[in-house]
Amino acid sequence: PAGLTIAGCTLESRLLIGTSGYPNRQIMLDAIEASGAELVTAAIRRISLEGYAESVLDLLRHKTILPNTAGCETARDAVLTAQLAREALETNWVKLEVIGDRETLYPDVEQLVKAADELVRDGFVVLPYTTEDPVVAQRLIDAGCAAVMPLGSPIGSGQGIANPWAIELICSRSPVPVILDAGIGTASDAVQAMELGCEGVLLNTAVAKAREPVRMARAMRAAVDAGADARRAGRMPKQATAEPSSPQLGLIGS
Amino acid sequence: PAGLTIAGCTLESRLLIGTSGYPNRQIMLDAIEASGAELVTAAIRRISLEGYAESVLDLLRHKTILPNTAGCETARDAVLTAQLAREALETNWVKLEVIGDRETLYPDVEQLVKAADELVRDGFVVLPYTTEDPVVAQRLIDAGCAAVMPLGSPIGSGQGIANPWAIELICSRSPVPVILDAGIGTASDAVQAMELGCEGVLLNTAVAKAREPVRMARAMRAAVDAGADARRAGRMPKQATAEPSSPQLGLIGS
Amino acid sequence: PAGLTIAGCTLESRLLIGTSGYPNRQIMLDAIEASGAELVTAAIRRISLEGYAESVLDLLRHKTILPNTAGCETARDAVLTAQLAREALETNWVKLEVIGDRETLYPDVEQLVKAADELVRDGFVVLPYTTEDPVVAQRLIDAGCAAVMPLGSPIGSGQGIANPWAIELICSRSPVPVILDAGIGTASDAVQAMELGCEGVLLNTAVAKAREPVRMARAMRAAVDAGADARRAGRMPKQATAEPSSPQLGLIGS
Amino acid sequence: PAGLTIAGCTLESRLLIGTSGYPNRQIMLDAIEASGAELVTAAIRRISLEGYAESVLDLLRHKTILPNTAGCETARDAVLTAQLAREALETNWVKLEVIGDRETLYPDVEQLVKAADELVRDGFVVLPYTTEDPVVAQRLIDAGCAAVMPLGSPIGSGQGIANPWAIELICSRSPVPVILDAGIGTASDAVQAMELGCEGVLLNTAVAKAREPVRMARAMRAAVDAGADARRAGRMPKQATAEPSSPQLGLIGS
Repeated sequence: PAGLTIAGCTLESRLLIGTSGYPNRQIMLDAIEASGAELVTAAIRRISLEGYAESVLDLLRHKTILPNTAGCETARDAVLTAQLAREALETNWVKLEVIGDRETLYPDVEQLVKAADELVRDGFVVLPYTTEDPVVAQRLIDAGCAAVMPLGSPIGSGQGIANPWAIELICSRSPVPVILDAGIGTASDAVQAMELGCEGVLLNTAVAKAREPVRMARAMRAAVDAGADARRAGRMPKQATAEPSSPQLGLIGS
Repeated sequence: PAGLTIAGCTLESRLLIGTSGYPNRQIMLDAIEASGAELVTAAIRRISLEGYAESVLDLLRHKTILPNTAGCETARDAVLTAQLAREALETNWVKLEVIGDRETLYPDVEQLVKAADELVRDGFVVLPYTTEDPVVAQRLIDAGCAAVMPLGSPIGSGQGIANPWAIELICSRSPVPVILDAGIGTASDAVQAMELGCEGVLLNTAVAKAREPVRMARAMRAAVDAGADARRAGRMPKQATAEPSSPQLGLIGS
Repeated sequence: PAGLTIAGCTLESRLLIGTSGYPNRQIMLDAIEASGAELVTAAIRRISLEGYAESVLDLLRHKTILPNTAGCETARDAVLTAQLAREALETNWVKLEVIGDRETLYPDVEQLVKAADELVRDGFVVLPYTTEDPVVAQRLIDAGCAAVMPLGSPIGSGQGIANPWAIELICSRSPVPVILDAGIGTASDAVQAMELGCEGVLLNTAVAKAREPVRMARAMRAAVDAGADARRAGRMPKQATAEPSSPQLGLIGS
Repeated sequence: PAGLTIAGCTLESRLLIGTSGYPNRQIMLDAIEASGAELVTAAIRRISLEGYAESVLDLLRHKTILPNTAGCETARDAVLTAQLAREALETNWVKLEVIGDRETLYPDVEQLVKAADELVRDGFVVLPYTTEDPVVAQRLIDAGCAAVMPLGSPIGSGQGIANPWAIELICSRSPVPVILDAGIGTASDAVQAMELGCEGVLLNTAVAKAREPVRMARAMRAAVDAGADARRAGRMPKQATAEPSSPQLGLIGS
């Protein structure tokens, strides 16, 4: 259905995928292919390590690389990392992460808003990884971010969407695409994100750590499509009591 | 992925769909087409009304009709209704419903087991609509049913799967296919059913009463595929704490 | 608040408690005391073992013993067991259990209804342990049971109330008290049962297997009272959006 | 059980209660009495309106008033309001609210941390109303707050605890008491908050807007005690399958 438009660019796939934690490189490449994702995110810190950059980025040349600032803990660190990526990869897009806690990998929202503001002024297309806090989402939108990417649950936890109410609220208010980022564990989580009003889903571990990553990537591709269609189709209202889908009267016994 | 085998017949689609409650006949036919379902269920009582039978069954001639005993309240009534359908439609398959309560449309499990037993002895391929009670599911399997079809929540309620634990348990034990029947409200519900181990999903109202039934039918088709793939792919374990999908150490700032 | 009336007898406490699985007998007695329960259930099979009967029943002489038919798998077995208990304990009350599955300890509802029917005819006050199936609950009420006791989740699982919708439905229809039996894991589960409309809670493992059984018994006592009061107080409706509990205008800054 | 110690002061009751939205003043006073709360929060803006101050504060003289900064939207506004309250009420305690969104009444966490920092430096005992973001909670603790008060769901919504995982995480890490503030709708919500590790619960609308506020206040009193006891008692582990609480072997039928 349709496609995902960010900062004027339209992607056919609503799925964004990461490059970490796969059993091996071939499975990573096969899974990314099976997912149909066009936007592939990779940690700038790792890309910068010579050797890695050569091979993986070469192999993913037909995809659009979305560098991320994973591992940065201050606005300053994240801004510098993004600038380095812009030079190295010739892209002004960045998935902005500023981590406030090493155990939960929750963002530091104050530093995040600050970094987003600086990067937007510096000409970046900024996609920030944030909490499900609607006030922070609004600050990021006000700062000029091209999308907002709230977490479903902690990175790599696979717990799904802990607070659907907040995600739905953010979606209902945002003039820019909302992309669920972090926490997806299986296909139904991705569908739910889309049903809540997200325009895309970014995931990594759910595919990389599935028993069969390539099959799970294919599942996620179908899931995101199913969710986008279900959202647009307008679901039936929930009913407190049953309503017969078949008629209750007829020839026999009536 | 693969397909759904019931009583030796293999269907490509894991989705079964009903024929009631659509805005009009054309939308019903378009939605059934979009769903990809090969097995289409219709109330025998309604089929029996001349005129209806002529047109709808003619229009659905390329599908396999699964007659159901909707509206029956006793084993005797259900058995007679199934026998009538066998004659009229030249099929020995039946979706067995014996309703114990007009408000919730919950099955009367005692009468259900009794009817299933009689119909199996009489040569029917019996697909019983039942509760999520694992003991009753076992009785139906013991009686020789070709599948078991537990409810997610009341017929037409769209409340999703009220008791996932029980559904998963039934799936884990059943030697015959488990098909979730009733309660599906949107695509994520259908995915969840498959992730719990169901081999198919039967739905009606979720499509018929969506704002755009044809689009929702398409969503359900993708949903069931996504769920079947996700199940087979083996989801990642849920983690209590975060695990970085991107490396935390690198060139900058470390 | 008020009290629980079953078959014309009014108990002050809405908590019923079991006697199995405690670290030792003294903790059991202390926990039962702390719980405030007046009705204490014990397996007839165990009571019948001489020695046990002497001591435990003597120690619980100030409580009302509710014999249960735990371990019975047929109506016939359960009826015989109840009759034995009536003779041995001089009570015509019985907690009726007919188990259909040794792994989940789910009731066999067909045998359960049959046993209930026989025991009521034989003059018993029957409190049946059943599933959350509203049709079966109605059959038990029709048979003359003095209460219905649906499960929250499997015995001893501590998973809480798997299907609150069904429990609430049973409560809304039942002319006799509904007592949640099985699945309670902690105090909030007991409160929820009461808020859904149950008139009592029967539990055992949640207390017996808590780290501090006596303290948990006290928690359960308060929980059942809190839930009964909350139910009668009529909870506020859930609101989709926030409503200020404090005024938004005032002296400063307005 | 025990009591709640904040900034060296020990309160017997773990329940904090608000003063807004009751049907009338007498019901408010009766409900506060029935709740057993010692700490009663009131909006400084309203207190400041002469006449109100006279009567309500006089009537609540035997309670400890906790002034709150409801309605403030900037750190500066909140700090001024707190200072005004200190003068007027001769207390250096303040429930700090800095609202970032008038619809959801979510806090503006950046301004909140700033205000908390200033107020602590100025000698206040600060109890901040915050989101369920563990990083922000840590910033508030680092700033010297005497407690942290994360929301369960939006103020006045009665939706309960939307993200139990996050609340439990904040509790597990905090060296100061965690008090759940906002979103409680009924007694089981309050019990759950305590079971997750909160040391207190602050509520208002759940009591004020119940059909019978006084009875609900009593329910909440018991609920908080039940939850505190259940937490300390150490709940049984959840089990995937059933475990018989009664013995399965015995005299009859074995």
